[in-house]
Amino acid sequence: MKTVLIKEDILSRNNERAKEVRETLARRNIYYINVMSSPGAGKTTLLTGLLNELKGDFRIGVIEADIDSDADALAVERATGVRTIQMHTGGACHITCQMSMEALEALGLEGLDLVFLENIGNLVCPAEFDTGANMNLVLLSVPEGDDKPLKYPLMFEVAHAVAVTKTDVAPIFDFDRERAVTNVRFRHPGIPVFFTAAAKGEGIAELAAYINNEIKKTIR
Amino acid sequence: MKTVLIKEDILSRNNERAKEVRETLARRNIYYINVMSSPGAGKTTLLTGLLNELKGDFRIGVIEADIDSDADALAVERATGVRTIQMHTGGACHITCQMSMEALEALGLEGLDLVFLENIGNLVCPAEFDTGANMNLVLLSVPEGDDKPLKYPLMFEVAHAVAVTKTDVAPIFDFDRERAVTNVRFRHPGIPVFFTAAAKGEGIAELAAYINNEIKKTIR
Repeated sequence: MKTVLIKEDILSRNNERAKEVRETLARRNIYYINVMSSPGAGKTTLLTGLLNELKGDFRIGVIEADIDSDADALAVERATGVRTIQMHTGGACHITCQMSMEALEALGLEGLDLVFLENIGNLVCPAEFDTGANMNLVLLSVPEGDDKPLKYPLMFEVAHAVAVTKTDVAPIFDFDRERAVTNVRFRHPGIPVFFTAAAKGEGIAELAAYINNEIKKTIR
Repeated sequence: MKTVLIKEDILSRNNERAKEVRETLARRNIYYINVMSSPGAGKTTLLTGLLNELKGDFRIGVIEADIDSDADALAVERATGVRTIQMHTGGACHITCQMSMEALEALGLEGLDLVFLENIGNLVCPAEFDTGANMNLVLLSVPEGDDKPLKYPLMFEVAHAVAVTKTDVAPIFDFDRERAVTNVRFRHPGIPVFFTAAAKGEGIAELAAYINNEIKKTIR
């Protein structure tokens, strides 16, 4: 019982901070996207593709979160030229809004229109913590299986859009597109689902167009 | 600071309980294996293969943990005939030792030599909670990538054995076996690493032989 109350307290403080972050970013006309998935679902590869599609239209910054290792920030910056910082969570399994605020400050918001946060690879805990993002983009990789929305409900409930990744390997895995969409929408009715194979550049333009449109609906 | 202290308190109580579980199981001559990995790394398929290899030598019970869905317990029991129960964590991202104890009780230990726990798919949090198991078997799937031990340190530190899964798809992913072993052993020097493709039955006999041997070293 004590643990539950403490958790509620932590989450309620987190939600207040998320509101602040959202207001601050709105005042500065910055759109913020939180990218979440299991480990190895292809967040970094998808993000690299999206940055290359979107960097002509927006001034972008990227926050790469990891428990350890700087590999992702280096890879993203090298492949896209987009300003990227690495955040280490020191063992933590998710990004709290406090961490999100500190990372945004470390990145520096001056002159930016759009910020991506690549969250810790974890299909459970990051879903509980609102980072202050305008959009939660959740990835579901083909090798993981089309049943994952049934097993990890909250992640798909808090998602605003889902990108199925690694669709190029679908023929060798037991992954059914229609079943995947059905399972995702069982958790979140009507949510947009995109099919991508970022390593081959497939589906990225469509997802980028959707993001572009969402940004234009939100910021001036 | 408060959060950190509460966490230490929770973990220290968890460790005490794990010691109790281990003592209880030792008195009853039961070996307990905790299977952990990312979502969709192939825990259920590997477990099914292992059960079919081991069920001739041991009387086995299985605990399937999930946040939601009963799919795994039904699938395992149907494919192996081994007694399996489903545990729902109600949103929790890991199995505490208290949950582990309750599940062992619900399973019923009478007449068993060996119990498998399939933990929540999560490469972070379950590593923090000792379930009282004799062996932590950690899976790393080929589609996730050989760099995961660098990004998720604790999981590979607490592992006693690692099974690389889905090796049959290695040709189409950028996964290097030697690099995987190097990265795993960077976190845990000398740990045994097995290469498996459970859907094709590859590598299961070797892993089962290792488990068989470990059990015989531990229980009479």
